[in-house]
Amino acid sequence: MKATFMYGAGDVRIENVPDPVITAPTDAIVRVIRACICGSDLHPYHSMPHNEHGVPMGHELIGVVEETGSAVTTVRKGDFVIAPFAISDNTCAFCREGLHTSCIHGSWYGTPETGGLQAELSRIPLADGSLVKVPGVDLATADEGLLASLLTLSDVYLTGYHAAHLGQVEPGKTVTVIGDGAVGLSAVLASKQLGAERIILMGRHQSRTDLGIRFGATDVVAERGAEGVAKVMDLTRGEGSHIVLEAVGHLPAYEQAYGIVRPGGIISRVGVPQYEEAPIGFGSLFGKNARLAGGPAPVRAYLEPAIARVLNGEINPGLVFDRTVTLDDVPAGYAAMDNREALKVMVTA
Amino acid sequence: MKATFMYGAGDVRIENVPDPVITAPTDAIVRVIRACICGSDLHPYHSMPHNEHGVPMGHELIGVVEETGSAVTTVRKGDFVIAPFAISDNTCAFCREGLHTSCIHGSWYGTPETGGLQAELSRIPLADGSLVKVPGVDLATADEGLLASLLTLSDVYLTGYHAAHLGQVEPGKTVTVIGDGAVGLSAVLASKQLGAERIILMGRHQSRTDLGIRFGATDVVAERGAEGVAKVMDLTRGEGSHIVLEAVGHLPAYEQAYGIVRPGGIISRVGVPQYEEAPIGFGSLFGKNARLAGGPAPVRAYLEPAIARVLNGEINPGLVFDRTVTLDDVPAGYAAMDNREALKVMVTA
Repeated sequence: MKATFMYGAGDVRIENVPDPVITAPTDAIVRVIRACICGSDLHPYHSMPHNEHGVPMGHELIGVVEETGSAVTTVRKGDFVIAPFAISDNTCAFCREGLHTSCIHGSWYGTPETGGLQAELSRIPLADGSLVKVPGVDLATADEGLLASLLTLSDVYLTGYHAAHLGQVEPGKTVTVIGDGAVGLSAVLASKQLGAERIILMGRHQSRTDLGIRFGATDVVAERGAEGVAKVMDLTRGEGSHIVLEAVGHLPAYEQAYGIVRPGGIISRVGVPQYEEAPIGFGSLFGKNARLAGGPAPVRAYLEPAIARVLNGEINPGLVFDRTVTLDDVPAGYAAMDNREALKVMVTA
Repeated sequence: MKATFMYGAGDVRIENVPDPVITAPTDAIVRVIRACICGSDLHPYHSMPHNEHGVPMGHELIGVVEETGSAVTTVRKGDFVIAPFAISDNTCAFCREGLHTSCIHGSWYGTPETGGLQAELSRIPLADGSLVKVPGVDLATADEGLLASLLTLSDVYLTGYHAAHLGQVEPGKTVTVIGDGAVGLSAVLASKQLGAERIILMGRHQSRTDLGIRFGATDVVAERGAEGVAKVMDLTRGEGSHIVLEAVGHLPAYEQAYGIVRPGGIISRVGVPQYEEAPIGFGSLFGKNARLAGGPAPVRAYLEPAIARVLNGEINPGLVFDRTVTLDDVPAGYAAMDNREALKVMVTA
């Protein structure tokens, strides 16, 4: 089968490799219907040192179960499924609390033990936890837009939702979303779903912020840094934003976040931090009792109700996809996302 | 009158200065009954550069109103009052939300405009917000222990309570308190009040940790750093502590906090951070979705119910005082707290 590997910064290749096989009774093999490229894939695309073996890429898919191990009970051959981006058993203490990204037996795609999902076929470990069946969709007639929206539930939309959920977005609140990438726009849509009164979107790419407005943004701030902070403070009568959803991951975005968060407010981060140390002392968070939340989204915990909302047409998060490539063209897809020609790239396998 | 001034690290002096006078119609003058020395006063005691004018010290008191400005309506001459450590109007948007430490018109004691409360008399700005009357106490016959407990409501106990409140302590939770100073011990007592199932106290001074046990600690960990982290992880079956209350303010205490916090858990800081930058990336907070909260305690928001609990004998936070000095001996009180001969020093004015 064909699968995607990264050999270093800017070096993505499609290769023919043996089809994956069941290696544990809890595995399933899934035929990929749609996969996609994640904003987080761009971090190694910028900075990964050369790796002579190549790292298998991709952690988002919708697909059809081809085969299941003897211990798998919740999905079977022919089921149409979504794979949350984190592998989890859905039964451990953390999974039961809804924190599947800290599953005791969990892992991630693209490690030496697990493959990537930008491929024709994928081995899904702990399939009872790591796959969720989508009911009532006939792939022969399914709408492309519906498939796109279901695919976002594998990561991007529910990562935006996680930000809003941890930010405690609710009616009456002012939310500022930093970043007009696919996660930021998803965070706008999720904030709207959760009833935010006002949603300020900080982003500079008009086609993206236009989609943000369609998703529910009430204000767009194109300025960044001190200028952007001043603009948001103006918009909030000098008080700041109750909730700031940081969907970038670079330090300047975090600095913007603590600049605009209202005293007592919450900064919720879902952009994977490209830094370890950052200001959290009296001058940034402590003095104004600002709170900090965020982390990898436990997509699995949010998946069933989100599937229902997509199937009934309540939300249409798949609008974040603005380009579709075949597996052979995945390297061009990375390049298009990296140079911002594409917001988010879908892959047809 | 006599008042306390700090001229630099280790240099605390008692001086005779003019009695304070009403300078705004919202002021009150209070005769100090008891004041005290705060753990946060030790930070400048270690590091303050020489200041030729001296900085007025103290931000905690119980006292009796001597005089009120023409606009003051909630307290009057003769009232027995507590002064929360932050000056606030109790009416602005932030005060109404219970965040009096971010009061739009608020300020702090010991600035060039405000005096300190380690003195015989004090001018209290915005007295309607910055003083709270204690009902039904006859100072002529009041018990020393009761006065001590009421004095803790000016800062230390309710700072510990703020930590526990922001940490979302509730029945069933494991709480770890880092620091066996007066704030840490207060955080233990507050966690007990809020129903924590298990309270692990990290501290090395047995007389203090003994008081922690009296306040409700179920385990004491004397080790620090990696050894302390390993011990707490052992005590929590490798999962970590749902809630970590950091009552020290130095970076190693924060590092301990993110080492022991359970995935999805909360670190709540009330030790004033003596650092600005610290780890918050994937390896510390983000990877395990740990949350960070804390800041200066809005004591005013918690004061009335806490007064009731002290008056009815439900809590006895005044046990943190283990030494009493006169105003003349305040410099010796600083030294005793600094070299850990005293846990917390009360001042009789």
